[in-house]
Amino acid sequence: MNSEEKNSVGIVKPLDFSFGKTGGDALALDCGKRLFPVNIRYETYGQLNSGKNNAILIFHALSGDAHAAGYYSEESKKPGWWESMIGPGKAFDSDKYFIVCSNVIGGCSGSTGPRSINPETGKLYNMSFPVITIGDMAKAQYRLMIHLGIAKWLSIVGGSMGGMQALEWAVSYPDSVSSVIAIATTSRISPQSIAFNWVGREAIMNDPDWRNGEYGDKGPDKGLSIARMLGHITYLSDESMAQKFGRNLQNMKDYAFDFSHNFQVESYLRHQGQSFVERFDANSYLYISRAMDYFDLSENYDGDIDKAFSGVKSDFFVISFSSDWLFPPYQSKQIVSALRNRFLNVNYCNIDSIYGHDAFLLEVDVLSRLISDFIRNQFEKAKR
Amino acid sequence: MNSEEKNSVGIVKPLDFSFGKTGGDALALDCGKRLFPVNIRYETYGQLNSGKNNAILIFHALSGDAHAAGYYSEESKKPGWWESMIGPGKAFDSDKYFIVCSNVIGGCSGSTGPRSINPETGKLYNMSFPVITIGDMAKAQYRLMIHLGIAKWLSIVGGSMGGMQALEWAVSYPDSVSSVIAIATTSRISPQSIAFNWVGREAIMNDPDWRNGEYGDKGPDKGLSIARMLGHITYLSDESMAQKFGRNLQNMKDYAFDFSHNFQVESYLRHQGQSFVERFDANSYLYISRAMDYFDLSENYDGDIDKAFSGVKSDFFVISFSSDWLFPPYQSKQIVSALRNRFLNVNYCNIDSIYGHDAFLLEVDVLSRLISDFIRNQFEKAKR
Repeated sequence: MNSEEKNSVGIVKPLDFSFGKTGGDALALDCGKRLFPVNIRYETYGQLNSGKNNAILIFHALSGDAHAAGYYSEESKKPGWWESMIGPGKAFDSDKYFIVCSNVIGGCSGSTGPRSINPETGKLYNMSFPVITIGDMAKAQYRLMIHLGIAKWLSIVGGSMGGMQALEWAVSYPDSVSSVIAIATTSRISPQSIAFNWVGREAIMNDPDWRNGEYGDKGPDKGLSIARMLGHITYLSDESMAQKFGRNLQNMKDYAFDFSHNFQVESYLRHQGQSFVERFDANSYLYISRAMDYFDLSENYDGDIDKAFSGVKSDFFVISFSSDWLFPPYQSKQIVSALRNRFLNVNYCNIDSIYGHDAFLLEVDVLSRLISDFIRNQFEKAKR
Repeated sequence: MNSEEKNSVGIVKPLDFSFGKTGGDALALDCGKRLFPVNIRYETYGQLNSGKNNAILIFHALSGDAHAAGYYSEESKKPGWWESMIGPGKAFDSDKYFIVCSNVIGGCSGSTGPRSINPETGKLYNMSFPVITIGDMAKAQYRLMIHLGIAKWLSIVGGSMGGMQALEWAVSYPDSVSSVIAIATTSRISPQSIAFNWVGREAIMNDPDWRNGEYGDKGPDKGLSIARMLGHITYLSDESMAQKFGRNLQNMKDYAFDFSHNFQVESYLRHQGQSFVERFDANSYLYISRAMDYFDLSENYDGDIDKAFSGVKSDFFVISFSSDWLFPPYQSKQIVSALRNRFLNVNYCNIDSIYGHDAFLLEVDVLSRLISDFIRNQFEKAKR
């Protein structure tokens, strides 16, 4: 942590909430199985007010975790993944709001997932971990809400897979949500995205070091790295890659006429892949990407998104990015249109950006302006 | 071959042209090495006329080969890869034109490539095969032209990587080319495409069965299959995948809650990957995709495509497809604009299609109309 840093929440500590120790209050999953015990790793920033109407729930994306803001130590140089948006005076103002972020189940950063102990065997679940859904993630987070003594979130917020969780909450727990901020997301991922996820998982599962998920210290690093590099291409845009790398070579004047990383973009991807395996678990990647594949808000509503939103009560702010080709603006527009068909209060903004899907982490200035206004209005409304 | 098939060139035989047996006329490659001996596998359809002004050279794409039209036997049910466009009365009318298609060097379908014998060692080249370029491919094809006794092609034609070869020819052999038909191609591939190629090659080279290229009968099938599946996503479009597969499940009513191919799109990709390994060589995939990475028509012209075209004399027909995101229309427009800056005779058509990059193989009707007109005009001009 940079001690000069004035507008950070500062040093934070991850917290744990466990339930289902005896199976009595196990999580009933969409696949039909019951998951217990369940641990949820989470962090909070700011203070819950006496009216308990200033709580904001933030959902992370595929590779994120509960550590959304602040630092784990004075020495740490790596803040939480949404440090730019969460803190005193920031869009998610920790001086005004009580902000919660939890690691999804299936994850590898503290919450129960495939690398947790299976109580039936006393060994790691690995591939015996049940296949979970975005809905299951929401169920677990709902338990956390009860535990925290919160009846209704002022706002629930997420980008990418985090946005799916936000939409799922709006549909499944309409009375617990005042407003939703859904960023760079979709109500169901396209076959193209399913296809990319498939190829990424194939890379992991075909790596001999995967060992059907029963790897030890040495996991399927090469496969996971390939999955990550592929994912990374889909998070950027043709234009941002052209601007950032072009066809520039990496430390060479002419082609090396070999298969090593000649181009800067190759070197960049290689680095992204290598650093990812140090912080993320391969089995979690399989489970979480599968949860995204399975996400279809309209699934239990005859494929009709309008119907899916029939019980929804919250206000909405839907944000997309012009160059996001993973969850393109047309998918956000479908959500907006369906919400408006239910006469809900919907703000929509398609932000002009070259940064592709990753724009939800990069377009800090415009997101800060839009979101702080929206939340301030929501808070005024909640106090009335 | 379906014997009812009236407008096929019918039974065809692949031909071989070899040169450089003693190294005296070796191919001087862009990497500085010399390649010899060189074999070029090719096919011809129709007859060269006495004026030798009716010859058309067709270039194949990454996974193509010399077998562009007709059948290898009466029993065969699989025609050449551009059967829809080549034959009596078709766009490339074998009753009127002499049509040639050759397998690129570096390939695995008869022309010299990494699985050919290295004369220095008496063993397969594998990774000792020199890294070749699109320019090197053109040099080899130029030798074939001399061998065939043709001084000038009426037209040279290619889609995707085939289009790169066509552009390369126009620049390198301006006096040997009357006209160029460049379809769904680019004058240099983008960092995004380089990135996809990188990930595909990583999948191959990280497959333990690759063995640094020294595999035997059992090659890196899993890696090659992953590379192919990934490539395939880039050949389709978001829209065509939505139309073809949607989120439909494969032979199941509900999610299987597992990691097998639940979705039709997953099943399709799996099939594409599996069938590819039966017909294509992994090392060739490495070399040919690398040649595409290295392709930059402006490389020897200060990065200026206008300059690259300064010596070009041929007429052009540039065709792109609205939903092609691998080599998007803007890249074709750059080519067209640079050619027009040189006051060349250029036709351009951006065909409205949902089929993405693969449209160059699928939009047969519109391509046939456009191309047969263009070639007829070129032929009239050649006869004048």
